[in-house]
Amino acid sequence: MTAGEPSPWVREGERTLVSTKVLDLTSVRYRQPGAGAVKEFVVIHAPDWVNVVAVTPGGSIILVRQFRFGSNALSLEVPGGMIEEGEDPVAAGMRELEEETGYGGGKVSLLGKVRPNPAIQDNWCHFVLVEGAVPTGPMDWDEDEDIEVSMAPAAQVLGWARSGAITHSLSVAALLLFGGSRRV
Amino acid sequence: MTAGEPSPWVREGERTLVSTKVLDLTSVRYRQPGAGAVKEFVVIHAPDWVNVVAVTPGGSIILVRQFRFGSNALSLEVPGGMIEEGEDPVAAGMRELEEETGYGGGKVSLLGKVRPNPAIQDNWCHFVLVEGAVPTGPMDWDEDEDIEVSMAPAAQVLGWARSGAITHSLSVAALLLFGGSRRV
Repeated sequence: MTAGEPSPWVREGERTLVSTKVLDLTSVRYRQPGAGAVKEFVVIHAPDWVNVVAVTPGGSIILVRQFRFGSNALSLEVPGGMIEEGEDPVAAGMRELEEETGYGGGKVSLLGKVRPNPAIQDNWCHFVLVEGAVPTGPMDWDEDEDIEVSMAPAAQVLGWARSGAITHSLSVAALLLFGGSRRV
Repeated sequence: MTAGEPSPWVREGERTLVSTKVLDLTSVRYRQPGAGAVKEFVVIHAPDWVNVVAVTPGGSIILVRQFRFGSNALSLEVPGGMIEEGEDPVAAGMRELEEETGYGGGKVSLLGKVRPNPAIQDNWCHFVLVEGAVPTGPMDWDEDEDIEVSMAPAAQVLGWARSGAITHSLSVAALLLFGGSRRV
């Protein structure tokens, strides 16, 4: 146990190692507390993300199932995606919900936000709650997206988040935050 | 809404773009379903991780606070780290708990596991529950680690996970899974 709070390092600069469409891999130079040595740490620079817990008037949560290239497997998740430059998290959540599922409308609010991984990433993931989501229009998938849209009663979806049937950590966190706020 | 379940792509190979101590950035070649085109997707290859919810005999949860190089900020989290090659997740959780906090012992079980990010990562994060954790020995920090160890009653820590005082998504998911299992 330290005597007190750890001292922050001082960020001195960064260089981009690889730049891709979804993230940049950077090496960030930090100086050790107390004017110590300078060391480099790998940091994934990515735009903020948004995940959406969308509940229908009947109390079901809208889910998407799609092939994921990281896990090389199908994954059942809440809708979500990248927030565009300057875009409001709530607006981004509604956009992603509408594009991925064709649902929208309802009462929209922020449920919370998390750091996907503060050890190696610099971004946030915002959780948006949509209450009373209804079909609003056609879906509009990105290239390479093929999405199965489904819904199930909130208690059942919370059970999937708790049992491991839903594995994406950000979907799990969003759903459990929603469940805690509603005692589902 | 698709007629049915999305078809998986076929993984055909990969190349490493950058290799670092904590992760490799790779480009993975996938063939589109139905013998379609081959496209490349960025995937972060990392070892599996472990996060530990350790509860003392008095019902407090053990927390660590440290500077994080991704977020450039101090972060309050549950203990955790990388699982070594061939290491059992439960053993890794106990090792990380002991190294980071000097606590150990108790009854150990798996609380669950999540994909940190199946869209762009290929690894799992296992959640280990330690019930009845007690001081067992000296801490053994990695180079560059400076950790403040603390503890607080479970209900208070769950409140921090729900309110945003704890931001790391994997800590939030682990704590809310624990809270749901105990109705804390």
